[in-house]
Amino acid sequence: MAQQHLDPTDPTAGPVAGEALAGYLRAQATEFLRALRLHRETGPAASNGTEESVDAARALRRSVRRISGSMHTFRPLLEADWSEGLRPELAWLSGTLSMENAYACRLERLLLALHRLSGAVFPTQTGVAAAVSPAGAAGPPVPPPTDRGNLTVGAAKAGALLERQLTLARTRAHSTALQALGSSRFHAVADKVAVLASEVPLTATATAPTTDLRPLAAAAEERLTDAVTALPLVTAGSPYNAEALIHGLSPDPAPHPQDAPWHQVRLLLRLHRYAREALYGTGGPIDVRLLTAGQALDRHRDASEAAAAAASAARTPRIAPATAYALGVLHADQRHEVEAARFAFQQSWQKQVVST
Amino acid sequence: MAQQHLDPTDPTAGPVAGEALAGYLRAQATEFLRALRLHRETGPAASNGTEESVDAARALRRSVRRISGSMHTFRPLLEADWSEGLRPELAWLSGTLSMENAYACRLERLLLALHRLSGAVFPTQTGVAAAVSPAGAAGPPVPPPTDRGNLTVGAAKAGALLERQLTLARTRAHSTALQALGSSRFHAVADKVAVLASEVPLTATATAPTTDLRPLAAAAEERLTDAVTALPLVTAGSPYNAEALIHGLSPDPAPHPQDAPWHQVRLLLRLHRYAREALYGTGGPIDVRLLTAGQALDRHRDASEAAAAAASAARTPRIAPATAYALGVLHADQRHEVEAARFAFQQSWQKQVVST
Repeated sequence: MAQQHLDPTDPTAGPVAGEALAGYLRAQATEFLRALRLHRETGPAASNGTEESVDAARALRRSVRRISGSMHTFRPLLEADWSEGLRPELAWLSGTLSMENAYACRLERLLLALHRLSGAVFPTQTGVAAAVSPAGAAGPPVPPPTDRGNLTVGAAKAGALLERQLTLARTRAHSTALQALGSSRFHAVADKVAVLASEVPLTATATAPTTDLRPLAAAAEERLTDAVTALPLVTAGSPYNAEALIHGLSPDPAPHPQDAPWHQVRLLLRLHRYAREALYGTGGPIDVRLLTAGQALDRHRDASEAAAAAASAARTPRIAPATAYALGVLHADQRHEVEAARFAFQQSWQKQVVST
Repeated sequence: MAQQHLDPTDPTAGPVAGEALAGYLRAQATEFLRALRLHRETGPAASNGTEESVDAARALRRSVRRISGSMHTFRPLLEADWSEGLRPELAWLSGTLSMENAYACRLERLLLALHRLSGAVFPTQTGVAAAVSPAGAAGPPVPPPTDRGNLTVGAAKAGALLERQLTLARTRAHSTALQALGSSRFHAVADKVAVLASEVPLTATATAPTTDLRPLAAAAEERLTDAVTALPLVTAGSPYNAEALIHGLSPDPAPHPQDAPWHQVRLLLRLHRYAREALYGTGGPIDVRLLTAGQALDRHRDASEAAAAAASAARTPRIAPATAYALGVLHADQRHEVEAARFAFQQSWQKQVVST
């Protein structure tokens, strides 16, 4: 706890022993088991998830990401066989569990954008959020039809189309997640995590008194810094650079390779954050700048995927021109959000560099 | 000439006599007659305008705006009957002469945007500009069909549709302008301007030795400053505020009343600029900050009208969904340009306030 405020690159800070990693992994494994129990109790099979089951699913994903991320960053300190067996399984689990929530959030984002673009005064923004966000819900479409009275025909039809497509995808993701949670493959993962909760398979090196976690954490930070350096931050920091939409009508089916380096930085930022947690505990003060930068990258990813969903919906056969027009406006709006998120990241990152 | 660097609000500067206004109006009237002669010589009746005839048309519009604007700002110094007879005629002429060029520029802007959005590498930007910009041209559509090979079907069809609609509008505007220039109504205006070139009908007050143009010029500046103060500059100065597109899918046929105050500031900025010219001559140093602010507002107006043209084209019956989608993306892109222009204006205006 005395080390909470230290920086891994601070030369005056003392070494952090391998036991800190073991403690972190044990805590995350315990959190995983707690979330899993809660998830089973609150009825994971029900299609209309309650608030508790949504929380449980979120906690489950959260712990899986942290275990998986720490195993990546501190790989040399963990038993290789165990590590190599578990990591791909955690990646599978993380991917499977995240899809349902991703579709729900994407739909919510797109419907809110459609309402904003229509100039319709939606009762409350949280009203939509509350109606959409339960990740377990494949429930009634939102916003309810009466709320579409304020939309143009095109916007309303575009909303209905996106709702149909993304609700279907979400329902499928829900079934897939349920199947996964009932599979023997999952039970094998859960058993391994249960073992991790009591006994972390550290290597002999890791348990040596001279071991220091800091160089591996510093390497994770360096990978992040290098990736950020490679980003087009000068362009991103110049408002209204119009870069994000530049290939918005490209015949290329994957017109936004420009997004990939940003997605990569998002993952590296997360690994850096988890490494800090392993070293200094989760109870310490939150690094607001890292949080802000991370939120900008989350927004970047969400907007990028929402824009792709709008473009994809526009390729549905036999839609009305007004629907297609609304989807075009929506696509461009979300690409604009992508650009705005890059600007926000650049701003938060600049502050970070200046103040550290 | 000694007064060139002076500010109309500078209390240490000497008064500017009514003769300065008379000199300015005479010079602009002479310029009008020169441009008119050039316009007739270079063949105004030809549908494919040469560079000279384009220049002549521009010079004609330019002098009409300046005469009309000065008559507005310095109204109390000019004979009321003469003034009230001529001003609406100049407004009619200015409007009639500007439409053809406006349609040409709008088409150019939209086609360039479509190419940018398609990720197509267009030979040179000036290539398009050169092909489109002769305001007198109702010539071959641009860019030529071969250049559309890089566009998606939707973008290409959207481009062709806009080209058809705006070329038709331009051709009509060209005919209207030609008819106007041959009308007895125009000849009456030209006669009055010819008189103005030698004798400016100043009031008795204006010719008094104590007359000072500066209070009227200062009032014009104040009208500008007041209008700027009423603009939502705090929002405009916050990048990616997403205001410009907020009613982009509104069922309202005129969804952008938010643009009107900016258009108004554009006109007031122009009047301020002409008042400065009348006071200190056109040969003096250019106020770069006024120029930059004016360019931002021109861009705002152009993008606003281009966005409306894209939205209007999307309402064409029986267009393909891909065409409508491309027009939606294009509309949103131009609304982003509107927002970017507001940001640019805010930035240039801030500089102005700080440094004066």
